[in-house]
Amino acid sequence: MKKVAIGVDIGGTNTAIGVVDDFGNVMVKDNITTPSHGDVDRYIDDLTLAIRELINSVKLLNPDIEIMGIGIGAPQGNYYAGTIEHAANLSFKGIVPLVKLLKLKFPELPAIALTNDANAATIGEMIYGGAKGMKNFVMYALGTGVGSGIVVNGDLVYGQDGFAGECGHTVLIPDGRMCGCGTPGHLEAYCSAPGMCRTAFELMVKYNATDSLLADKSFIELDSKMIFDAAEKGDKVALEVFEQTGKWLGQGLADTAHHLSPEAIFLFGGPTAAGDYIFKPTKESMEAHLLPTFKNKTQILPSKLKQGDAAIVGASALVYKEIEKLQHTGN
Amino acid sequence: MKKVAIGVDIGGTNTAIGVVDDFGNVMVKDNITTPSHGDVDRYIDDLTLAIRELINSVKLLNPDIEIMGIGIGAPQGNYYAGTIEHAANLSFKGIVPLVKLLKLKFPELPAIALTNDANAATIGEMIYGGAKGMKNFVMYALGTGVGSGIVVNGDLVYGQDGFAGECGHTVLIPDGRMCGCGTPGHLEAYCSAPGMCRTAFELMVKYNATDSLLADKSFIELDSKMIFDAAEKGDKVALEVFEQTGKWLGQGLADTAHHLSPEAIFLFGGPTAAGDYIFKPTKESMEAHLLPTFKNKTQILPSKLKQGDAAIVGASALVYKEIEKLQHTGN
Repeated sequence: MKKVAIGVDIGGTNTAIGVVDDFGNVMVKDNITTPSHGDVDRYIDDLTLAIRELINSVKLLNPDIEIMGIGIGAPQGNYYAGTIEHAANLSFKGIVPLVKLLKLKFPELPAIALTNDANAATIGEMIYGGAKGMKNFVMYALGTGVGSGIVVNGDLVYGQDGFAGECGHTVLIPDGRMCGCGTPGHLEAYCSAPGMCRTAFELMVKYNATDSLLADKSFIELDSKMIFDAAEKGDKVALEVFEQTGKWLGQGLADTAHHLSPEAIFLFGGPTAAGDYIFKPTKESMEAHLLPTFKNKTQILPSKLKQGDAAIVGASALVYKEIEKLQHTGN
Repeated sequence: MKKVAIGVDIGGTNTAIGVVDDFGNVMVKDNITTPSHGDVDRYIDDLTLAIRELINSVKLLNPDIEIMGIGIGAPQGNYYAGTIEHAANLSFKGIVPLVKLLKLKFPELPAIALTNDANAATIGEMIYGGAKGMKNFVMYALGTGVGSGIVVNGDLVYGQDGFAGECGHTVLIPDGRMCGCGTPGHLEAYCSAPGMCRTAFELMVKYNATDSLLADKSFIELDSKMIFDAAEKGDKVALEVFEQTGKWLGQGLADTAHHLSPEAIFLFGGPTAAGDYIFKPTKESMEAHLLPTFKNKTQILPSKLKQGDAAIVGASALVYKEIEKLQHTGN
């Protein structure tokens, strides 16, 4: 029997679902709308139908597969409780007991579990990606925000309540730029994709860089891909955006390393496609901030999860960690 | 049989040794000089003699005790290797295999283990102190420096190399005050006892506070106890030192909470004797820096270890964690 797991990634407007093989490849996938109507029961019905159809389609081609369970990545996902709690960009109000509701629909599956999206990607890296065999590592996911996941002694760190691993909301510059969460100076306000765009405008202001390739873009128009393209063409502002972002990110990674002394910190998400533009200054800055005992020990590595499928693949990996835990506790 | 453990605290000039009962009380204790001669073998002989004499003296009064082992707290102590590595303020050069050397002297003891002093205090808090029953907590030890220890899922976090938990060296103010480690802006440069003295002078400079009760002290003379005494007399500079130190410390604790979501962060060390002067602004600042999901969840608590004996008691606690680990791994 070939073992597979189902990954569900719940985003603000779209829910992506995939059946993932044990190498982390997506065999089949589908999408449903994450509703704006706020009706949890209707959403669970839609989700159940979509999952059942995917299972059927994959079993047609591979009759001897065994479905191990469903892993879900969701904003404000609480692993301990199996709930989504007060997620600002979902229409569901209050606390949604998603795992409990799905267990009623899929009583035959060994494991159903949920965590937030960055934690899911972190587990994906551990099960299928570059962190295979690592016992202590951290993932920073750079995108619209900066999410993170922490692994200590082979297990994800959930903390007292299931919400640990919010490194994007550590203070980088006291009283600095306003973060999306409403508090000033957080790493996310500097090192996310929108943070990089803010830096580009900051630098154009500083140098009055009307000749920059980015100078004809509006504040809502600019994105991190445009900064990368401009850097490739030698644009000074764009190149300095990467230098400066790396300096900031390296400072944050050093703080994380001083907490946890991880084997590696993986970087994931759109801005990491820029390769050395971002990795080189980040490494230099992290090393410059580290105590002598910590220098040249923690690697900074690109995530090995495929960008497009990472959320589904990461969520599916949660199934294997959950089964490991259930076996360990004898349940 | 009453179980007891031996705690050894190796400092720059003095090595304190105690026999500790299972409630964390020191039954007997002794001191030997931490040598300046750098001869490890002679030091091990002295230490062995002192430990044997303490065991004999405690067995005279309590014939039915069982010695479970020796726990050692030392600067740059590496738990995994049982070594002290390149400790700047000890005379021993390079890497000292202290656990191996003591095992040769005490082959009859079930467990001998070593870690750094802040980690030892953290384990002491877990075994005998205020963190009994907690699975996720952090300790910040404020003294000449700022040490820390992190517990996740009931185990101390050692990281890839045994050196995790250096929260004192996270960046509080980019390009700020020079830290003792040679890097600017670290939390230790602001929130240690000497950091508070630096803040007192900074404030006297700012206000030209010739009328402060601290104004007649030289830069090398001032200590954190004097600041506390002046605060008790209503000295404005001294009161503002505590306010400002709490603001800074709270920012650092929020960063730690965002990493780990611990049940509590314990504060330990001289400056914490000032009670609400330091705890109140620290709590307010931490809460102000936290994401909504994290607010009002992580307690800030004073350590319950007795100040004078904490280093010995903490080191002795390591013995019980080591025995737990040996039982778990079947060794």
